[in-house]
Amino acid sequence: MPTTLKEFESVWPRISADIQEHCKQYKLPQQSVDWFAKSLDYNTVGGKCNRGMSVIDTTSILTNQTLDPSSEDYFRPALLGWMIELLQAFFLVSDDIMDSSKTRRGSPCWYLAPKVGMIAINDAFMLEASIYVLLKKHFRQEKSYIDMVELFHEVTFQTECGQLCDLLTAPEDDVNLDNFSLDKFTFIVIYKTAYYSFYLPVALALHYIGAATPKNLQTAHDILIPMGEYFQAQDDYLDAFADPTVLGKIGTDIQDNKCSWLINQALKKVTPEQRKLLEENYGQKDSQKEAKVKELYHELKLKDFYEQWEEERVSELRSKIEKVDESEGLKKEVFEAFLKKIYKRSK
Amino acid sequence: MPTTLKEFESVWPRISADIQEHCKQYKLPQQSVDWFAKSLDYNTVGGKCNRGMSVIDTTSILTNQTLDPSSEDYFRPALLGWMIELLQAFFLVSDDIMDSSKTRRGSPCWYLAPKVGMIAINDAFMLEASIYVLLKKHFRQEKSYIDMVELFHEVTFQTECGQLCDLLTAPEDDVNLDNFSLDKFTFIVIYKTAYYSFYLPVALALHYIGAATPKNLQTAHDILIPMGEYFQAQDDYLDAFADPTVLGKIGTDIQDNKCSWLINQALKKVTPEQRKLLEENYGQKDSQKEAKVKELYHELKLKDFYEQWEEERVSELRSKIEKVDESEGLKKEVFEAFLKKIYKRSK
Repeated sequence: MPTTLKEFESVWPRISADIQEHCKQYKLPQQSVDWFAKSLDYNTVGGKCNRGMSVIDTTSILTNQTLDPSSEDYFRPALLGWMIELLQAFFLVSDDIMDSSKTRRGSPCWYLAPKVGMIAINDAFMLEASIYVLLKKHFRQEKSYIDMVELFHEVTFQTECGQLCDLLTAPEDDVNLDNFSLDKFTFIVIYKTAYYSFYLPVALALHYIGAATPKNLQTAHDILIPMGEYFQAQDDYLDAFADPTVLGKIGTDIQDNKCSWLINQALKKVTPEQRKLLEENYGQKDSQKEAKVKELYHELKLKDFYEQWEEERVSELRSKIEKVDESEGLKKEVFEAFLKKIYKRSK
Repeated sequence: MPTTLKEFESVWPRISADIQEHCKQYKLPQQSVDWFAKSLDYNTVGGKCNRGMSVIDTTSILTNQTLDPSSEDYFRPALLGWMIELLQAFFLVSDDIMDSSKTRRGSPCWYLAPKVGMIAINDAFMLEASIYVLLKKHFRQEKSYIDMVELFHEVTFQTECGQLCDLLTAPEDDVNLDNFSLDKFTFIVIYKTAYYSFYLPVALALHYIGAATPKNLQTAHDILIPMGEYFQAQDDYLDAFADPTVLGKIGTDIQDNKCSWLINQALKKVTPEQRKLLEENYGQKDSQKEAKVKELYHELKLKDFYEQWEEERVSELRSKIEKVDESEGLKKEVFEAFLKKIYKRSK
């Protein structure tokens, strides 16, 4: 049985207290401790926590154990999961500033909360730094400690490289479809999303249970990075084609000039006239122009194309999962659990 | 003989190439590599590099060697020095956004450079991440590797805590002298400046030469943190009292509502009427009000007070340096070299 959000959130207060404890050792004035505590809660808690919870689920599958949420056996992989959520919080707080976003998880973005403003940049740094405070406090004695530290460093840098490429490829104020390409789309998806969302949770669980052999890490990488690509293509598909009442949000990728899977597939299929239509209507804050782009997506039969593409990707993933060598402690079930959460999701 | 800026800068291209090389392994598109290379140069090079160079000077003193700038023996401590400069670049790029600064080292702040804007936030992250790319590439095999990684983590977090306290104590738009206190001033100075500027270079050199015993680190800490406090008080003193043509810049602490050494000393000395004058004139973008604050600083004889205070602090530091136990490989000369660069400086 996968862990629940309620169980996962139940360990957060202890983690937040650990981080605050560290600040108090510094004699950080109380006003600052309170501020930081508020930022930790506001930015780290409140999401779906799929990434964090999958460290627990993966650990549970790999050790063939049901983990009691009140036990240390649950707490330790949960701690690693919350570190991914802290990493994500660090990215989201800063991405929201860079993208001039207005809301996040139904509340104002942190930088738009009262009195915060650009202090949010330093708050983002402190969310990132908290990862290493926790790793040192709880995993310093483990053989895999330095590997976990290096894994966080590497995945952080990879995500930042993906973000840079995304920002340069699709600046909100300069629409130029020549900038887009499936190669760039693939780079951005893998680096900005797949490493930290798909590879990191499983790699952490492998380190945690002592099964992070080079072969197991490579196998996890070779399945989870393509799974992350598939996930993001699906996300982009849903942005334009899903029912907003089911999806829970209204897609904005076309107006936001996003280098999405759909626009890149469209660019491969268009006639010169259709390309002109895209150039004139993509990436502008105008719902009539957005509607024209969507109409073209329909003409190009991108819905059917996506559905066929999805089946192919899922078949490839299933065949890779089938071939997983379980001799060094990895299990097919880890990947099946991931795929099950994603395949044909509607939100 | 201390190293020169020219020598120190001569190794930078190799370091920048190492970092870019790492990105190319990721197949980061060339447009992004070029952007990052430009950010690395723009933000890391061009300062006085006192922090970075002091890793080399400290290493040279501790090993009793003259380091040939073209040798690996020079390159390796220089690399550690450039990591401090990268850390500082990370802080400065983001501080300039948080403070709405306009120029840095005589050029526009990075976020104000053409086409940069808020991408600067992600660029700052990448400057920080570069530290760990370099540490892993060049120091992974060393016994002190994990200690150096943890030292960078800790000093980074300490600096961020100092920055948070500073931002909350002296918000530019809300002048409230009740917020200030010498305790907060001291916390801010130690955490925001002293750890990374004074303790970090020497601690890194100690790790590098294999002399980072707990005792040596403690001794370095107990001298360099007060030295950093003295340095910052002096900096604040010079901001108001130095000749701008000698200092090379015009002080803005009074108008910027800075929680500086001078305002905190003034608050300890004022009558209720004088406090009222400060409340009405401090922290406002108005040069007549600034002049009134300066006049009060003169009335309170803060120049004489500072000069006496400086002599006391320097005596204390000299007496601590005199007592340094050199039996575990530390040397008094390390601290004497630092103090010599600071004492009675006029810029």
